Amino acid sequence: MKKIRDLVVDEEFQGFVLIKNADVRVAKNGKTFLAFTFQDTSGSIDGKFWDASNEEIQRFEAGRVVHLTGKREVYQGNPQMKIYKLRLTNPEEPNDPQLFMERAPIKREAMEEELNQVLFEITNPHWNRIVRFLLNKYKQEFFEYPAAKKNHHAFVGGLAYHTTTMLHLGKSLVKEYPQLNASLLYAGIILHDLGKVIELSGALTTEYTTVGNLVGHLVLVDEEITQACLALNIEQNSEDIIVLRHMVLAHHGQLDYGSPVRPRIREAEVLHQIDNIDASMQMLTNAISKTEAGEYTERIFGLENRSFYVPRNVE
Amino acid sequence: MKKIRDLVVDEEFQGFVLIKNADVRVAKNGKTFLAFTFQDTSGSIDGKFWDASNEEIQRFEAGRVVHLTGKREVYQGNPQMKIYKLRLTNPEEPNDPQLFMERAPIKREAMEEELNQVLFEITNPHWNRIVRFLLNKYKQEFFEYPAAKKNHHAFVGGLAYHTTTMLHLGKSLVKEYPQLNASLLYAGIILHDLGKVIELSGALTTEYTTVGNLVGHLVLVDEEITQACLALNIEQNSEDIIVLRHMVLAHHGQLDYGSPVRPRIREAEVLHQIDNIDASMQMLTNAISKTEAGEYTERIFGLENRSFYVPRNVE
Amino acid sequence: MKKIRDLVVDEEFQGFVLIKNADVRVAKNGKTFLAFTFQDTSGSIDGKFWDASNEEIQRFEAGRVVHLTGKREVYQGNPQMKIYKLRLTNPEEPNDPQLFMERAPIKREAMEEELNQVLFEITNPHWNRIVRFLLNKYKQEFFEYPAAKKNHHAFVGGLAYHTTTMLHLGKSLVKEYPQLNASLLYAGIILHDLGKVIELSGALTTEYTTVGNLVGHLVLVDEEITQACLALNIEQNSEDIIVLRHMVLAHHGQLDYGSPVRPRIREAEVLHQIDNIDASMQMLTNAISKTEAGEYTERIFGLENRSFYVPRNVE
Amino acid sequence: MKKIRDLVVDEEFQGFVLIKNADVRVAKNGKTFLAFTFQDTSGSIDGKFWDASNEEIQRFEAGRVVHLTGKREVYQGNPQMKIYKLRLTNPEEPNDPQLFMERAPIKREAMEEELNQVLFEITNPHWNRIVRFLLNKYKQEFFEYPAAKKNHHAFVGGLAYHTTTMLHLGKSLVKEYPQLNASLLYAGIILHDLGKVIELSGALTTEYTTVGNLVGHLVLVDEEITQACLALNIEQNSEDIIVLRHMVLAHHGQLDYGSPVRPRIREAEVLHQIDNIDASMQMLTNAISKTEAGEYTERIFGLENRSFYVPRNVE
Amino acid sequence: MKKIRDLVVDEEFQGFVLIKNADVRVAKNGKTFLAFTFQDTSGSIDGKFWDASNEEIQRFEAGRVVHLTGKREVYQGNPQMKIYKLRLTNPEEPNDPQLFMERAPIKREAMEEELNQVLFEITNPHWNRIVRFLLNKYKQEFFEYPAAKKNHHAFVGGLAYHTTTMLHLGKSLVKEYPQLNASLLYAGIILHDLGKVIELSGALTTEYTTVGNLVGHLVLVDEEITQACLALNIEQNSEDIIVLRHMVLAHHGQLDYGSPVRPRIREAEVLHQIDNIDASMQMLTNAISKTEAGEYTERIFGLENRSFYVPRNVE
Amino acid sequence: MKKIRDLVVDEEFQGFVLIKNADVRVAKNGKTFLAFTFQDTSGSIDGKFWDASNEEIQRFEAGRVVHLTGKREVYQGNPQMKIYKLRLTNPEEPNDPQLFMERAPIKREAMEEELNQVLFEITNPHWNRIVRFLLNKYKQEFFEYPAAKKNHHAFVGGLAYHTTTMLHLGKSLVKEYPQLNASLLYAGIILHDLGKVIELSGALTTEYTTVGNLVGHLVLVDEEITQACLALNIEQNSEDIIVLRHMVLAHHGQLDYGSPVRPRIREAEVLHQIDNIDASMQMLTNAISKTEAGEYTERIFGLENRSFYVPRNVE
Repeated sequence: MKKIRDLVVDEEFQGFVLIKNADVRVAKNGKTFLAFTFQDTSGSIDGKFWDASNEEIQRFEAGRVVHLTGKREVYQGNPQMKIYKLRLTNPEEPNDPQLFMERAPIKREAMEEELNQVLFEITNPHWNRIVRFLLNKYKQEFFEYPAAKKNHHAFVGGLAYHTTTMLHLGKSLVKEYPQLNASLLYAGIILHDLGKVIELSGALTTEYTTVGNLVGHLVLVDEEITQACLALNIEQNSEDIIVLRHMVLAHHGQLDYGSPVRPRIREAEVLHQIDNIDASMQMLTNAISKTEAGEYTERIFGLENRSFYVPRNVE
Repeated sequence: MKKIRDLVVDEEFQGFVLIKNADVRVAKNGKTFLAFTFQDTSGSIDGKFWDASNEEIQRFEAGRVVHLTGKREVYQGNPQMKIYKLRLTNPEEPNDPQLFMERAPIKREAMEEELNQVLFEITNPHWNRIVRFLLNKYKQEFFEYPAAKKNHHAFVGGLAYHTTTMLHLGKSLVKEYPQLNASLLYAGIILHDLGKVIELSGALTTEYTTVGNLVGHLVLVDEEITQACLALNIEQNSEDIIVLRHMVLAHHGQLDYGSPVRPRIREAEVLHQIDNIDASMQMLTNAISKTEAGEYTERIFGLENRSFYVPRNVE
Repeated sequence: MKKIRDLVVDEEFQGFVLIKNADVRVAKNGKTFLAFTFQDTSGSIDGKFWDASNEEIQRFEAGRVVHLTGKREVYQGNPQMKIYKLRLTNPEEPNDPQLFMERAPIKREAMEEELNQVLFEITNPHWNRIVRFLLNKYKQEFFEYPAAKKNHHAFVGGLAYHTTTMLHLGKSLVKEYPQLNASLLYAGIILHDLGKVIELSGALTTEYTTVGNLVGHLVLVDEEITQACLALNIEQNSEDIIVLRHMVLAHHGQLDYGSPVRPRIREAEVLHQIDNIDASMQMLTNAISKTEAGEYTERIFGLENRSFYVPRNVE
Repeated sequence: MKKIRDLVVDEEFQGFVLIKNADVRVAKNGKTFLAFTFQDTSGSIDGKFWDASNEEIQRFEAGRVVHLTGKREVYQGNPQMKIYKLRLTNPEEPNDPQLFMERAPIKREAMEEELNQVLFEITNPHWNRIVRFLLNKYKQEFFEYPAAKKNHHAFVGGLAYHTTTMLHLGKSLVKEYPQLNASLLYAGIILHDLGKVIELSGALTTEYTTVGNLVGHLVLVDEEITQACLALNIEQNSEDIIVLRHMVLAHHGQLDYGSPVRPRIREAEVLHQIDNIDASMQMLTNAISKTEAGEYTERIFGLENRSFYVPRNVE
Repeated sequence: MKKIRDLVVDEEFQGFVLIKNADVRVAKNGKTFLAFTFQDTSGSIDGKFWDASNEEIQRFEAGRVVHLTGKREVYQGNPQMKIYKLRLTNPEEPNDPQLFMERAPIKREAMEEELNQVLFEITNPHWNRIVRFLLNKYKQEFFEYPAAKKNHHAFVGGLAYHTTTMLHLGKSLVKEYPQLNASLLYAGIILHDLGKVIELSGALTTEYTTVGNLVGHLVLVDEEITQACLALNIEQNSEDIIVLRHMVLAHHGQLDYGSPVRPRIREAEVLHQIDNIDASMQMLTNAISKTEAGEYTERIFGLENRSFYVPRNVE
Repeated sequence: MKKIRDLVVDEEFQGFVLIKNADVRVAKNGKTFLAFTFQDTSGSIDGKFWDASNEEIQRFEAGRVVHLTGKREVYQGNPQMKIYKLRLTNPEEPNDPQLFMERAPIKREAMEEELNQVLFEITNPHWNRIVRFLLNKYKQEFFEYPAAKKNHHAFVGGLAYHTTTMLHLGKSLVKEYPQLNASLLYAGIILHDLGKVIELSGALTTEYTTVGNLVGHLVLVDEEITQACLALNIEQNSEDIIVLRHMVLAHHGQLDYGSPVRPRIREAEVLHQIDNIDASMQMLTNAISKTEAGEYTERIFGLENRSFYVPRNVE
């Protein structure tokens, strides 16, 4: 059976989906409705459920698997599901949310294998031990969490996938610019977004945690590094630990984007630029996949609200 | 005998001073000179030593006490010392730098006493224990360090003095706005700049440390708080510890000024505003003290480069 | 009986309220409705009246007292009144708008008393006479007007209440920083927002006047001061009158916020900062009062659109 | 004899000039020198007087006419006078500063005549009376003052000349866009910079006055208008007086440039644009007159620091 | 019969109009509607067509002439047409879109005549030939196209009208400032927006073309100039061709507004300012024509979103 | 013999160097001096020649090879040559400037070879032909010119070297993100800075040309592409030519940096990011090469004036 993102306009759909979001809203006519985001492994699609009763609002919560009958339409340039019918699953039907979540295009095992290989290239023993210590501490979350609530890599395993891709880019740059400190760059890449596992609530219905909002993932990794030093008996104000902390704190590149310090060592600047490239590519690929050739994508918030043109078949 | 900042224009000076800074520069005519900042307890004054030999450059280092003969002049609107003669001190003459450093106008004992009183008003036991733990850990530095390299409170005990004054302002606000959480505000005030004792090198010839430049005092305190939690067996992601960390991380008020998060709890906003007021007052008072009535102060970097007018005798 | 802001979600309401605003809008379905803001002394609440006839639009004008039957709901995170029934009051029922307006938490008499005390501390005779002259001229409005159309202190007596609170803060600062010119600061505080009585239309249905929009309250006070000089035979270009005018013109702190000059005397900078603090505290207190612990307030326009977190019971 | 701005590079000069500015500075070698700006009716030129004694500093004050022997050179792309000899004038020699000041290229009588004609086109009686009243009050200064301390129209009669040229532009626009209120535009043009006669100290050695710095010429005209209303018994909050005040307050176009309100009536926007054009043209013409074809002018502060290219002989 | 922009509120209308835009939208109640913009020679007005069927959506396309029965209302401060009935025209009824389009207030012949006169004043032969060549190449479009999609001069002949008006302003400035190179200024004015004929799709349903979005009209004219040089055998890197290209590339005045270079010759700065004035005047006149005296216009996007006040009858 | 950039502090030097720049300046003491930049294949170093006579100024022009005796010193943190003696070369001594110019670290033949390989991967025939056509037209300059006047790649062959390195990065990205259009990306990389050969005057004493200043290298390449279309009989407004022009016009990424359009196709965004990375790496490597470990580099203009820390021996 077709997945929800594989449907063409006006194609009808009947099948199981996960409720990723279920916002209760009031229409201009004073009636309550549910603004759903449905999800299966192909991606997600919005749909509105009109005149929702209190009972229905409670029944169709985010995180539930449901059986949906509807039709794919277009609303303000975006795909939308017109809902004909919606019901909870029966006991014998599939109801594990895990089965319906969008996932990184690479398997966890492959990513884990790659990461393990890279660890051998982090030759500074302090950095190596800290990276291993923290990867081990948050192993479960690292391979499960998305890299963001929305925008880019917002799917199961997104954090590990983003990290893996950045390691590929990092290796290319190290090859082109051998003056780069490869150990430092790889350690920085692996740790830079690890704070997301504390900043976000998880992969299922991703929200910012309180500590995520009030402290933020940059400082959260930094704290983890200094505490790892305590645990591993490494002097936290030694030169190599200072530069490692700087790598993660500076990786947003600008104060305006939440880095408390701007990159002031070469590898920190490179880390920031690699992060930028992979985030841009993910957002672009995502937006372009929803757009016909010869048309413009929706405005992409993470790329200063630009909309991009998708050229017609130029080879 | 008169101190260096008490001299009027064209008044001659003879006495002992501390070399606070000694920059080696090359004049446009190709000759080397020393750009000194001399200091005694009244403040500091610049002076140029022309045609310095290599031997003189080594002899008159920053941190040395010297005997100076000269005359107070004005250079580009600022006081300047014309140097007639300069020599190192003899063994029997005063040569302890401590005797010549500018100090907070309140004695350490008085500040310590005040601080101890305030500790009793921090009724949340976690905050209380963390503040005591860190004050104890950095007690020596807290009462010795300046609050900045230059700009404001750049004198011995400046950090403690800045903190004490802010506590006074904090108490006034708590009285006016009883809805404020006084414990949290006082804990935040005491800790907010404590990272300066790691960011800066000390009171004598104040420089930024490497970790100061690459991590910064906001994150440095935050790390100290989380490590204090480990030492004191306090859960670091409990609500009260999160808001305490937020207080120190957000106190610069804007991302552009180096806070990784903007204030998002009421007391964090207040802490930022109190900090602003005391810094402004210190800079203004300092600049105005060097300016005649009816004239404009030099431009004040920390106040967006404004110069201020000093009104004539309006009561 | 409960006031409108004391109701909990889903609680029904029956009673008299004032129509503060009544905007005529057209729904997406082409029908006309009224977007009301109802008010009593506890505050205000929005409510929509669907399918309004022309007669109803004219009947339920802003400024009218009405009898409302409804239920408190939540709409997009804000309280909302679902309207069951709405009718004008009968002759024997309460219909004086004054009885339903939100008011400063301090009585006018108390504020007046305080202000009179402060006048004795303005020892410069020119400032003293000008302040008395203008307070006298606008006495009625000063104690009646709000300090703003919305945002902060938008209630009856808000202008006087804002001024009184700022005088408290001013006194604390004068005590902490005795180098401040207390007379000038107090005179500046009392006059700084007095132009609001010309800029705004009044307390009942507050709008900007034409002169408010095209000239603005900063310049309006300044004009009043120079005209008071004419009336009182004070030379308007004497030093003390210049600095007093500067106080009011500069109190927004930045050109971007509508001050034609930035603060360039010490007391003008302080006046700006005190104004900032009291406005922030009012907006924060207002927003937090509508928010549960553990939640975030709505975005606060006057605080750069931040939403604030309300910590759970941390003592 | 040649004037100072007519000299070519390396041409020698001998004659009388006015000392427009005489700044006392200290060279890097510790010696005092005088940085002069000399002036005659052709314009001004800088020159340095090395190793000035105290007596010489007092002798060669700004405002003095002197006899200068020297040579025109180039210093950092700008004309400069190398001083061979400098002496005060003898009693029988010319010593009236007025004879050496740069002046508007149009005679005062011609400008006065033009202005009088325009007054008849201001048909609104309030505006007409106010303009006449204020022109009469400041008649002497209006035709004598420059329009700025430096930048543009910084010469005797510059204010009247700037005003006259703007009236020409205003008339062209009224002809092209007959929907404009000509009375209002002309009244606004005449008054817009009149506050300069209070903001600046005069034509000879132009400085900002205290009230100029702390209040500024926009508000100063506005005050004059409201006081003229008192004198002429015109209601100052009538619609026509409000828009006239708005014209002068808004003419800098942006809050950032010191207008307390942005233009919000059509004629205010036009006034701002005309002001811009004439100021730009004056700055450009001035800078280009000092630059060879095929070269770039010095950077022009008032045009966002751009330097302009002067095309070679393209017709 | 009355035109659509001549109707007063609540006046009924029956007649032929052009569908300028027809956006398909979905209402909050899930039903599809058409958001029309109707047009006749008096201007345009919006109107909503509720519950549109697929057949109706296809029938009432942009570019069609229709017979409309309805009533002029007001929606959110703007005029709106309530649609009673809508049908296609019968064969014998008017159906040429050209008859219903808004047009420049000056006839094409008059503009053409004026332009021809100006061509004689472009005395530099290169500029003269290039301007003639390009005007000839795009003659049809130049007199047909609007000067923008919306904002200003968005009507048939808008480009030529904008150009003609700017030539008037240019001549006034040349008269006032004879140092300007009139040939260059006139050539620049005529060419500056000519790229619009490639950037936009035409006068009927104006859209940006792909090359308009991805290259933009400034560079498009520049390309045309260099290709005209090839055709006319003029050296494209001669001084006069360089400055002509600079004129068109710099005419937006700031990099932020899409000029790849800022104006760096005098005439380029003037061209930018004239362009500004005419665009502002068009937008203001347009907005004010829809606003009652004593009221504020809608916010004008092209004037930094300001709304303007329309003064009551001040003469 | 040692090259000038291989000298340590205080090491004496005797040998042949090229005068890269020779600015005539006036010292504060009124005397003329020459501010030289000397160059050999190791890089460049500044040096001041005091009290230069007119004859010496003419003798020691930029572009001359000279024999220099001097000593390497440090001036304001940068290397400087103290000049003992300077003379022109004798006929039998080396005097070809080419021998002394800094060059790309890769030989021209190698870069040419690489480029030729890449041409085969540009499979779109239009792009392929245009790239070949323009490379052929500017072959000599492409391999000779620097990529900038200063900042990055300011050496012989810098343009080709910058292009080659970017092609490496481009290939890595194409491998990682196969959805990218490789042909378009490679064509864009090769052409993006080709306009520099018109914008700059050459490799020896690099200056901006007039057309460089007034048109700029982005538009200059764009013009070349459209003219190549004419020569090759390719329709310039076909989709593939439009996107190619967009690639070069948008590659500065932001309007503020001189792109008339922001990147709006995926490959244009990638081109901009690759350009950024290589420019950053070149500037960083250059600055770090002049800095000791444990110290900070000079401020780097092209990296928002940041100075970077060079970590001590962390592996």
